[in-house]
Order: sequence, then structure tokens, then C-alpha cells
Amino acid sequence: MAQKKVAGPEIERLIQLLAKLPGLGPRSARRAALHLIKKKDQLLVPLAEAMGIAVEKIGICSHCGTVDTSDPCAICSDPRRDPKVLVVVEDVADLWALERAGAINACYHVLGGTLSPLDGIGPDDLNLAALITRCEAEELEEVILAINATVEGQTTAHYVMDQLAHLNVNVTRLAHGVPVGGELDYLDEGTLAQALRARTRF
Amino acid sequence: MAQKKVAGPEIERLIQLLAKLPGLGPRSARRAALHLIKKKDQLLVPLAEAMGIAVEKIGICSHCGTVDTSDPCAICSDPRRDPKVLVVVEDVADLWALERAGAINACYHVLGGTLSPLDGIGPDDLNLAALITRCEAEELEEVILAINATVEGQTTAHYVMDQLAHLNVNVTRLAHGVPVGGELDYLDEGTLAQALRARTRF
Repeated sequence: MAQKKVAGPEIERLIQLLAKLPGLGPRSARRAALHLIKKKDQLLVPLAEAMGIAVEKIGICSHCGTVDTSDPCAICSDPRRDPKVLVVVEDVADLWALERAGAINACYHVLGGTLSPLDGIGPDDLNLAALITRCEAEELEEVILAINATVEGQTTAHYVMDQLAHLNVNVTRLAHGVPVGGELDYLDEGTLAQALRARTRF
Repeated sequence: MAQKKVAGPEIERLIQLLAKLPGLGPRSARRAALHLIKKKDQLLVPLAEAMGIAVEKIGICSHCGTVDTSDPCAICSDPRRDPKVLVVVEDVADLWALERAGAINACYHVLGGTLSPLDGIGPDDLNLAALITRCEAEELEEVILAINATVEGQTTAHYVMDQLAHLNVNVTRLAHGVPVGGELDYLDEGTLAQALRARTRF
């Protein structure tokens, strides 16, 4: 049901746009807009500024496909990164998650999605050609496919694997198993079966 | 736990500010920021603009205390509104809710909160003096206290009632009872008791 518009057009437009953010519906967008207007100096002004700066400065890294204020991005232009290891992720959010984990000091390549024929997403819609060019041009030792363990993610991983088969590079993927802190009782059978099959010596 | 910062400072600042919106936590703020950056032209640019306009134009109506782009606001300056009926609300969100219901064509007064001695909110922190001045100056027939049915709201309503006692104006409050569409089984005893006490002829 379309909500009756009761605030002025400027406020309604702000609410409408906020409602497009993931995690905010029409009701919470209204609360957010009101919160912003009430905290004008502490929140609305700085947020408007931060967004203006984002509009102006943030772009896609032409090398790896992540978002940053410089091109090539801070990661691609960091000399301390191991240039022989390339981690392939679906999305920038996954790159950030891996960086937060801080477990690897490698370079990245962001595909920008997964193959999904039903949604009309084919290889040409992903940042795939650039990945293959990179793998051919750079002297890589290992390509880690850190792609989500979903059906689409795994299909995409297999496709990428095939595309890289002619190159002399190790292609690996993340281990499947019990999440750290996870309880067996809450895990699905697929994960448990994988964790058993890939068991390691204690 | 503070999240490790992995994106550039401009993106981190955007995430931090988005996380201050009600309904968004650090995780969803990150998702929202990424969504904004990916949908730069469709969402980030218009939202930055809408916020800029809000910063510039939206203020508090000096007459009733609501937020609008004009002062006095669109409601206060609307000649079709009944000037003899004044609806007192806690918050602009409540005013919007009543306007969406569309059940009354009156003027409003926004208190901006409720009395809450524990939080240090006394009568001087609310838009109360202006309400009393208005009630003295304007030829009102009825003041409807549409204040939340919470303990603080009802305390505030009683206080406002006392302040208006010397004036020749009917002070009313919203009816308590079963919400339309509500099931008795899910209602608290207080509401049910009120609904029984205030029962009407069928």
C-alpha cells in the first residue's frame, strides 16, 4: 500500500531515497529522515558532506574491481602485498570481510557477482575477462577462489577454474567445515559431511 | 568490539555516519555504503542532493514546532485547517502518523518529547511555553492531547492539562481501547480493562 504523503516534497524525497537503502523500509526510512533532520549539525550536515565526497572521489579500481578513492586502489598499489597470490571474490563486501580477518596479505580480484543464467547474468557481465588477462600477464603462483559457498558461487568457481586450466597456476578454494565457535547441532548436513570428509589430524 | 577498518577513510567515514541512523548497525551500514557506491548515479548522487537540500531548506516551524521547508509550516499556514482545534503531539513522527490517518483537519503543536525527570527533561526542555502562549492567544475550542499512552506520555499529558486548566478550553485525549484489527487474546490487561470501561452502545 502506498503511504499517504504528509511531509513536504523535499522531506518525502529524502524518505523515498533512504527507503532504497538495504535494511531500511518505508517506516524506518521515515524515522531515519526525522532523525537526520533533528540532528542536523551532528549528522545530516556531515553525512551530506561525506556523500558529496563519495560522489566525487570514489570509483572502481580498473585493476581489481574494488571501490576506492584512488585508481589503482590502495591494495593494488601496496608494494607490501604478495603479488604472487590472487584472491578472487564475488563482491567488495567479501574483500572487506577477508581484509578484516587479516589472514592473508595478497592481491584481490572482484568479480562483481556470480553467474546466474536465470537472472541473465553470463560471463560477460562479470569482471572475468580482466581476471583471465591478469592471470596470463602476472606471474602468479596461486589463485584462491574465495567465492561464496552457494550454488551460484560454486558454479562460478567451477567456471573460473575451467578458464584458468590452461595456465600454470595453482587454483585453490576456501576450506569447508565447521565455523569457529559453531555448534554441530545447528549445522546443516552438507557442512557436517564436508567437515568429516576433510577432517585433519589433531 | 571495534571493527577493523579496511576501506579507505572516505568510505569508512560514510559507513560510520550511516551507522548512526536508527535501524542501521555497523554491519548494515557497511552494506548500505556499498550499495550507495555501487548505485552511484541512481542513489548516491540523488541522496547526496536531497540531503544538501534538506540541510539548506528544512527547519523547525516557529509556530508549531514541526519540521518543514517553510516557516510557518505548510500546516500552520493552511487556511483550510480548523483554527479552533489544536492537536498536541510528542513528536513530528506522531504528527505525520495522524496526518496519514487523515481523520482530523486541525492545527498541531509538537512538544518535542515528554517530561522525564530521570533523563533530566523538565518542562523547560519541551516546546511547552509556546503551547500555553498559543492557547492563551488563539481562540481555541478544543485541545486534543494526542500523546503516547506510555507512562512518560501520560505524565506529560497531565502536566499540560494542569497548565491549561485556567483557560476556557476543552482539553481532550485520545480514546483507549482495542486497536482496529486487534485480537483480544494478544492485548494487555490495561488496554482490555480500559476498553471494557469505555464500552459504547452497539
